[in-house]
Amino acid sequence: MVVLVAENNLSVIRLEIPGRFRDRKGTDSMTEIKKSIKIGLAGLGTVGSGVATILKNSNLDIIKKTGVSIELVAMLDLNFQGKEHLIPEQCLTTSNLDTFLATEMDVVVEVIGGTKFAKEVIEKALSSGRHVVTANKALLALHGKEIFQAIAEKNLQFKFEAAVCGAIPIIQTIEKALPQNSITKIDGILNGTSNYILTRMHEENLGYHEVLPEAQRLGFAEADPTFDVDGLDAAHKLAILANLAFGSYIPFSDVYVRGIRSVHSMDVKMADRMGYVIKPLGITKMKEGRIEARVHPTMIPKTHPLASVRLENNGVFYESNYSGPGSLFGKGAGSLPTGSAIIGDILQIARNSSVQNCFAVEKQFAIATLEQITSRFYIRLMTIDRPGILSRISGILGDHEISIASVMQLESGAPLVPLTMMTHQAIEKNVHLALEKIQSLSEVQEEIVLIHVES
Amino acid sequence: MVVLVAENNLSVIRLEIPGRFRDRKGTDSMTEIKKSIKIGLAGLGTVGSGVATILKNSNLDIIKKTGVSIELVAMLDLNFQGKEHLIPEQCLTTSNLDTFLATEMDVVVEVIGGTKFAKEVIEKALSSGRHVVTANKALLALHGKEIFQAIAEKNLQFKFEAAVCGAIPIIQTIEKALPQNSITKIDGILNGTSNYILTRMHEENLGYHEVLPEAQRLGFAEADPTFDVDGLDAAHKLAILANLAFGSYIPFSDVYVRGIRSVHSMDVKMADRMGYVIKPLGITKMKEGRIEARVHPTMIPKTHPLASVRLENNGVFYESNYSGPGSLFGKGAGSLPTGSAIIGDILQIARNSSVQNCFAVEKQFAIATLEQITSRFYIRLMTIDRPGILSRISGILGDHEISIASVMQLESGAPLVPLTMMTHQAIEKNVHLALEKIQSLSEVQEEIVLIHVES
Repeated sequence: MVVLVAENNLSVIRLEIPGRFRDRKGTDSMTEIKKSIKIGLAGLGTVGSGVATILKNSNLDIIKKTGVSIELVAMLDLNFQGKEHLIPEQCLTTSNLDTFLATEMDVVVEVIGGTKFAKEVIEKALSSGRHVVTANKALLALHGKEIFQAIAEKNLQFKFEAAVCGAIPIIQTIEKALPQNSITKIDGILNGTSNYILTRMHEENLGYHEVLPEAQRLGFAEADPTFDVDGLDAAHKLAILANLAFGSYIPFSDVYVRGIRSVHSMDVKMADRMGYVIKPLGITKMKEGRIEARVHPTMIPKTHPLASVRLENNGVFYESNYSGPGSLFGKGAGSLPTGSAIIGDILQIARNSSVQNCFAVEKQFAIATLEQITSRFYIRLMTIDRPGILSRISGILGDHEISIASVMQLESGAPLVPLTMMTHQAIEKNVHLALEKIQSLSEVQEEIVLIHVES
Repeated sequence: MVVLVAENNLSVIRLEIPGRFRDRKGTDSMTEIKKSIKIGLAGLGTVGSGVATILKNSNLDIIKKTGVSIELVAMLDLNFQGKEHLIPEQCLTTSNLDTFLATEMDVVVEVIGGTKFAKEVIEKALSSGRHVVTANKALLALHGKEIFQAIAEKNLQFKFEAAVCGAIPIIQTIEKALPQNSITKIDGILNGTSNYILTRMHEENLGYHEVLPEAQRLGFAEADPTFDVDGLDAAHKLAILANLAFGSYIPFSDVYVRGIRSVHSMDVKMADRMGYVIKPLGITKMKEGRIEARVHPTMIPKTHPLASVRLENNGVFYESNYSGPGSLFGKGAGSLPTGSAIIGDILQIARNSSVQNCFAVEKQFAIATLEQITSRFYIRLMTIDRPGILSRISGILGDHEISIASVMQLESGAPLVPLTMMTHQAIEKNVHLALEKIQSLSEVQEEIVLIHVES
């Protein structure tokens, strides 16, 4: 039986003459197309190729499971050399955006990346009445407000599961499984490159500069790794998650960011001894009516669910009032995992006629400043072993209302001695001020290492 | 702007005169009801109370986030004493099913449990044109075929996120995030009671019979724990997951089940030494065109994502061709977590007009028999330390094509010596046959312990 669903936007789903396919096993069970949806693919890079590959290999399976036939009708890219095998018959290929958009299609899939041409593609797609699916976290983090304001005026769907943690269904979990909850906290390992580097530092006792070249060689880090290791990519994703979780616009520039370059193998070893592991965490919390949103290397207990997220994998941990704590782990990037998330979104557009975007464009809550954020901290400094130095340092900490939970001084034959401290809960701003003073002591050499601790 | 969505089933969503509510913060942002959905709640036990509590406390938040107003119009139970605070004004309360169903409502929420009256409620709800949301795994595992055949003839939604692992959104992940994938494997910690007991055995070096009474006292085990510790509850959930993952009907009786009663603290200790942890796993795989579906205590490496799922928590790990491996952890039971899952389903019915049930009613694949299942195994037996016994045992194993990866014999002053072996991949049937022979050796005392090992 073919079900005719009346749609408020007639371009969403056309009822085709129902097709019937014999399935692969050649049994008697027949596959019926209940809905057909035409898509245009803008960008045939890593993610775009993943989308095209999955459609090429699995379209019949998709019809069988969902009743939806996805038809790839146009591709937009500068050139298609070497990708001919991914282009279906009768699919238009063009490098011209207007030609691309002149094709009859229901959904534009934007997987070009970057924030300029991609923005133009999305804006024109929306203004010509197309639903949009994108993997572009930078665009959402930087221009989400404009884009969602544009969508709010239209009756179109805008979906971006692939923009945050690739194949991990965190966006649909927040939008569909958790809307009846108040989310109080999200911790995420949101960047595979940083997690890969820190995991290998932990497991193989290597230094940052030993792991990075190999990560680059293996494709887990870009030639210029800045965007990943300095936390910007994770901050983009965190801004999107915080927006959805708390229903409040988070300007990307309000996210506090520190990358992993400063993490030394000595700190990794210390963390391990103390029962912790250092992870590249994005943390966002609702606390006293303010939102905390920060990305930095963080020590978490080895029993924390995110501690088991290794190498290039991503993971998200959330706390919510009714569901309780939950977590989702999986592939955060890559051609097929991200392509799979894109196709999941397309199928949801085809199967779901209701339009509901949760992305907030208004700031509903203040962002917590460093004066308002408290945390436990791991501090390591290298000192000349002179009498009285520990008392001077702990005096400065005490003056800033920072109390010390434990101190460890490793034995060392070297002139410089590593002094490691774990604090109780302290105001972050005070910690920065105290460390500035401690750094200026003549006995303190090298840059002081500061790592957040979550339990 | 209120969007009017034309529906093929007019009872789904009535467009009410749009209401506007000032939100809690009293700011200028207004909350608009875009859709209103009337529900009847059958059963006001643990889960039903969770549903009613969430609606009572968070209805305005739900409207704000989703535009959907959920109206609780009728409750069905034998008595409502002590629950008066959960009954909204103008909500009908009755113990009569026909009176209950005579109320105008869009969705019946069945949280009565059991497989008799609950079945009647669901059948009458469907035949009177109501969508159904249920948490009833036993009913689905035992009568899923009849129920889904009844639904297939109607244009109604039947949702059951709460039936498998409470607050963990595994059903929507399979149905919405993964339909473009071939799922090849699911491992799940599907029963909180069993996981609670094994976790405490591991972490506190306790025996099964020491933990059980405390688990009962703390509410993590029933007075009669059979259903949980013998694996039946997990097997119900596994049958549902396997059905959705592989699109093939899995009769509950085809699931191979062994509970955790036989796990001894000695085995827990051995597992720990070898870098493993024993978990109550449900495992389903597609292999050579056959489905494996089994529930039994299983050793997994401490680095396995599910190893970090502790105490009463649940977790599901899946492998799929495009998304790659992924996992979801969270609360598997409890009033509010399960109530939250129920409300998530109601909201999806309200927001989504498309009807697509993935539950298969036809057997598409054979279920693997023990002759067709291979695994690695941990074997422990208690022997009298007589010369030649190891050679006789390993001879029997060899005769059954079972090769041994490692052997460990703990020192012991006692007359009985524990002999522990880890096998390479072996055919499960052969292992059972070999152990039957070994059990009959005069030197072998006590029952031999057999635990599956997954890597």
